[in-house]
Amino acid sequence: MSNQKTYHVAVVGATGAVGQKMLETLEIKNFPIKKLKLLSSSRSAGTKLKYKDDIYTVEEATPESFEGVDIALFSAGGSVSKRFAPEAVKRGAVVIDNTSAFRMDEDVPLVVPEVNEEDIQLHKGIIANPNCSTIQMVAALKPLDKKYDLKRVIVSTYQAVSGAGTEAVNELKDQAQAFLAGEDLTANLLPVKGEPNHYPIAFNALPQIDVFQENGYTYEEMKMINETKKILHKNSLNVAATCVRLPFFTSHAESVYVELGKSDLSVSVIQEELAKANGVTLKDDPTQQVYPTPLDAAGLPDVFVGRIRKDLDHDNGFHLWIVSDNLLKGAAWNSVQIAESLVKHNWL
Amino acid sequence: MSNQKTYHVAVVGATGAVGQKMLETLEIKNFPIKKLKLLSSSRSAGTKLKYKDDIYTVEEATPESFEGVDIALFSAGGSVSKRFAPEAVKRGAVVIDNTSAFRMDEDVPLVVPEVNEEDIQLHKGIIANPNCSTIQMVAALKPLDKKYDLKRVIVSTYQAVSGAGTEAVNELKDQAQAFLAGEDLTANLLPVKGEPNHYPIAFNALPQIDVFQENGYTYEEMKMINETKKILHKNSLNVAATCVRLPFFTSHAESVYVELGKSDLSVSVIQEELAKANGVTLKDDPTQQVYPTPLDAAGLPDVFVGRIRKDLDHDNGFHLWIVSDNLLKGAAWNSVQIAESLVKHNWL
Repeated sequence: MSNQKTYHVAVVGATGAVGQKMLETLEIKNFPIKKLKLLSSSRSAGTKLKYKDDIYTVEEATPESFEGVDIALFSAGGSVSKRFAPEAVKRGAVVIDNTSAFRMDEDVPLVVPEVNEEDIQLHKGIIANPNCSTIQMVAALKPLDKKYDLKRVIVSTYQAVSGAGTEAVNELKDQAQAFLAGEDLTANLLPVKGEPNHYPIAFNALPQIDVFQENGYTYEEMKMINETKKILHKNSLNVAATCVRLPFFTSHAESVYVELGKSDLSVSVIQEELAKANGVTLKDDPTQQVYPTPLDAAGLPDVFVGRIRKDLDHDNGFHLWIVSDNLLKGAAWNSVQIAESLVKHNWL
Repeated sequence: MSNQKTYHVAVVGATGAVGQKMLETLEIKNFPIKKLKLLSSSRSAGTKLKYKDDIYTVEEATPESFEGVDIALFSAGGSVSKRFAPEAVKRGAVVIDNTSAFRMDEDVPLVVPEVNEEDIQLHKGIIANPNCSTIQMVAALKPLDKKYDLKRVIVSTYQAVSGAGTEAVNELKDQAQAFLAGEDLTANLLPVKGEPNHYPIAFNALPQIDVFQENGYTYEEMKMINETKKILHKNSLNVAATCVRLPFFTSHAESVYVELGKSDLSVSVIQEELAKANGVTLKDDPTQQVYPTPLDAAGLPDVFVGRIRKDLDHDNGFHLWIVSDNLLKGAAWNSVQIAESLVKHNWL
């Protein structure tokens, strides 16, 4: 290990929910770090964070922060990425960006390593990490597309509040506590921080994640639709999404209907493909009540799939239930996996 | 009002979650009651319940309890209905049964009054109240079927714990309290009382409602599939369902994809049909963040519909978000509506 190449790594948004998980993931994976720099907005600068045995002081991000940085992991919101990612690239860093800022840019690869790792080498300085709800879905659907030609996807999501950040996690806790004490609920944040109306999430379901687009879909729904096609390199794919925020802390679940290009398939051949797929764990045995749930998946890096059933009317249709930790595979874990690919293949 | 005909009404399962709502609904609707009899298992017999200004003592149900009863509302589980409904019918009562015991029997009308009220007159003593998640869906879909010929339905549900009874409500409360206090969660009931495995519902999602069938679908999912076809008198309809239990107390929500027999329809014509439908309230304005949620719908008898969008690939496809109080329109309210129809049309 002594002659392994090591890298100067920056984490932008280190104090946030995903930033924390990025640090944990870098540590778990023992990423070859030469020097670590933790960056944030001025508001969180000065915070002390632990990585391995050392304490780091979070610094305010400036263009100059990226001097000498090899790999910069961004997860501090789209506006921060738009402002600082080009500055980091200008200074020679490769940016792995967890916001939606660059995902649909033609020049920016959008990558789930199990699905399209080879796209990483096309980067021009920025590689985008897809939306959390997209990552877990394409990780499960890619093996089916490869073997049986995916034609259509209709997904309804069940998404955890941690996808909206630490403040949303606290809002759910506070509201749940108030509700159980018989007090009134105060909603200040969800469904969307910048929007005029806020609704309680505790013991409720909010069918709005991110802002509405002119076509009546939310931005989250359009992200799932567009990103899925881009990652799978399949513009002809039909994708529809309904995204719903729910009162749990960690892991997104998805009820997914797929139509394949092949008929006469059995549930067991679908199970077989998923069981051998990288990063996917099959958890599917109705006879033993075995299926994934958000609580079970929390803290684990895999994408779990269960409840696989054949549609009763459409011979090429299947229904699946896909669950994964939105902060890990949906964000931090996938970002660090991209960094590992960069290093392993020398694609920096 | 003095010469209005009045009826001897029995409520079986009066102490349960739905039974209580039946009493409330009879009172709100000022149902013409001559005599009221509250029945239950031996376990709950002796309980005192209030109806209008009187206190009633709940009696243990026996075959003889139904002597002289005109209308018997059952909601005490399938085995109670199977045992006592025929006894009630034998003694001249018309039974409105809220369990799944008789729903698919050819001789038993399965009724949502806004959808197929005329089926009531075909009864031979028993009329079945559909499953909660089915009722709200068909109430919203019937107007679209009537005008535009419904071809296909794919639904993913978001179902409240009260659908599993008062014990499930208490389990969610207890678990949520324990979780917030940092204690371990105990699961003794959900997803299904009689099953070997129980999983926490607080801050979680359970993709199992009722027991699994041989085809991998749960009984709840098969109820939605089969009941929808029966109520709409449409065996050719394609229906697929994924049913999920969630940590909220009241109201089921549903993400529903429909395909219609007509193309080139706009969102506004779909909204128009739903806005004028009986028992349906349109709550759909993304520009103002207006859409139904379970908390908002709780305590109200209507079926609320929002998030109506056209599928981006299929010109005859639409996505809807349907929410209703599972104990009211999904159970007690619909049952009492059936009783009202019986009386109004003299179909007893």
